Amino acid sequence: MNVEWLNVPSTPLNKEAADQAVARQMQLTKPPGALGQLETIAIRLAGMQGTVTPSVNNVHITVFAADHGVATRGVSAFPQAVTVEMLRNFSRGGAAINVLARYLGATLSVINLGTASDPGSLDNVTDRHLGAGTADFVEQAAMSEQQFYDALNTGRQAAERVSLAHADLFIGGEMGIGNTTSAAAIACALLDKEASLLTGPGTGLDNNGVSRKAEIIAKALARHQSAVGDPLEVLRCLGGFEIVALTGSYLSCAHTGLPVLVDGFISSVAALAAVAINADVADWLLYSHASAEPGHAHVLKALQAQPVLDLGMRLGEGSGAAVAVPLLRLACELHNGMATFAEAGVSEKNG
Amino acid sequence: MNVEWLNVPSTPLNKEAADQAVARQMQLTKPPGALGQLETIAIRLAGMQGTVTPSVNNVHITVFAADHGVATRGVSAFPQAVTVEMLRNFSRGGAAINVLARYLGATLSVINLGTASDPGSLDNVTDRHLGAGTADFVEQAAMSEQQFYDALNTGRQAAERVSLAHADLFIGGEMGIGNTTSAAAIACALLDKEASLLTGPGTGLDNNGVSRKAEIIAKALARHQSAVGDPLEVLRCLGGFEIVALTGSYLSCAHTGLPVLVDGFISSVAALAAVAINADVADWLLYSHASAEPGHAHVLKALQAQPVLDLGMRLGEGSGAAVAVPLLRLACELHNGMATFAEAGVSEKNG
Repeated sequence: MNVEWLNVPSTPLNKEAADQAVARQMQLTKPPGALGQLETIAIRLAGMQGTVTPSVNNVHITVFAADHGVATRGVSAFPQAVTVEMLRNFSRGGAAINVLARYLGATLSVINLGTASDPGSLDNVTDRHLGAGTADFVEQAAMSEQQFYDALNTGRQAAERVSLAHADLFIGGEMGIGNTTSAAAIACALLDKEASLLTGPGTGLDNNGVSRKAEIIAKALARHQSAVGDPLEVLRCLGGFEIVALTGSYLSCAHTGLPVLVDGFISSVAALAAVAINADVADWLLYSHASAEPGHAHVLKALQAQPVLDLGMRLGEGSGAAVAVPLLRLACELHNGMATFAEAGVSEKNG
Repeated sequence: MNVEWLNVPSTPLNKEAADQAVARQMQLTKPPGALGQLETIAIRLAGMQGTVTPSVNNVHITVFAADHGVATRGVSAFPQAVTVEMLRNFSRGGAAINVLARYLGATLSVINLGTASDPGSLDNVTDRHLGAGTADFVEQAAMSEQQFYDALNTGRQAAERVSLAHADLFIGGEMGIGNTTSAAAIACALLDKEASLLTGPGTGLDNNGVSRKAEIIAKALARHQSAVGDPLEVLRCLGGFEIVALTGSYLSCAHTGLPVLVDGFISSVAALAAVAINADVADWLLYSHASAEPGHAHVLKALQAQPVLDLGMRLGEGSGAAVAVPLLRLACELHNGMATFAEAGVSEKNG
């Protein structure tokens, strides 16, 4: 298998453009720092896009969907059939991410990497079938080596297509009943944390359900302990196809120099894996929101991430990232469009 | 003076529309509650607008500007001339709020209630001159009774104009060198807090500057102690024209039933005064952001406010509220545009 692409270095940031953006922020008609995180966002985008006037017009959202063997253990408040039902909802344009993409004028792609039942051919959904969902990772590795590299590569190819479309921003999303279980297990293995710390209600488990879910994750971690220390093997043993594809897409974005806006808990775990594989990837990741899923705070802390929003969202699909897009756009508008002190004839700060 | 309008009851919320909106949120293809605060926003707007499908298309921003007598005591990091210079910047379209209003397609009005020097006639700025700024409130009441009621009424008339324009949302903004000093003094008087607790750097004072500012506020509070307990008198003695106008505008919005999106520290203090005058006003106020100005947290807590954003902004002008507008719009889009479980044929939660 060709895995050399995983070790390609990230595109370096353009420090000169970022420095020019810092200087520009100091000249705009406002007290220095008064736009808070909006200033930081504009400066980071300037460094990524290599221009003092960054923009976030052309946004591409790719949602990866797949089923999880572990879902048969009752780790979700919703039945496994919902993964396929939501693929149909994506296909017809009725899901949250469809509404958001339309409003933002963003291009939305949906890729099915493998569901437990066959949804048949769906408009607006690309079929990249790697199996009828993953295997139950309490019993065995979630996927074969071939499935694993195919999932990574599916993410890579999706990001490359977006890059070729001259996108300003890549957003990855996910759908898959059971995938907070997979994400929590991966995060535990990468961060060396107890299952109970990173396990949460997902789509809406009660307290007993969360306890059972944590026990199942603890069992899976015990079975795959030999994978710890090797992020690729952690992903293969505990991942979902969609989570691995997200990791592949983030790695590819960093290779080609495409800014990424990371969504919530599951996407952040995919980002954590990508950074574990190649630390430079972090330069290309912006974080959109703090999820209500309790494990997210630990993952964000490990990534030293400062998300833009904290709205108590916990939907996935890339929805939190999509909701943050207008803030990135406004950050750029302010940065590019405000008058400077000199242009406006406004006095600067005393002393 | 005709002050009876201050005691007009607020328009009652439409409970039926709000209940229908709650029911709709439970039917959308997502786990209940998964959109977090975006669900709450849509439900609150439904109750205010009296429709199960609220919208925030027609947004009006009114910026009130004025100078402060206390500014001559060196309470700001910027010279007093900046108030007039920023009015020119608003007039020419170069300030943050101009950029934001253009991007949002919002109508922007700027009203000058009185600056220390005469800016002359400015395009896109309405002149409602009440004096060359307020008096120094360390020495005397900031304004006469006539000035006070004229400032309140200017805010009321501005809100009434917006209401007649069939706006979906009212945003008030402010500009006035020295106005965090006035706002902190008002908040101390209304909340019975020490000056040191609510005094912050404003546009960028250093620690020594903040200490001096707190001492000046403490002196003013001592002088106007007899005003405590009467929110109107607190506003008259310690206010700025623009803060009083904001309070008048919020009262008027609640009377006519127009949703308000409150900006940061100074606007929240104006809201605190409005709620002290008429508690029902609170039904009509949404909070946009948590300011970096440290006193804001105390004011928000007193208002039991949960702002949408926390970006470390501290600019004023209505800018934080403007930045939050896309989130209100997306909340409505999701609420109105997502498919229901029945429409999409998606299974609901187990059990």
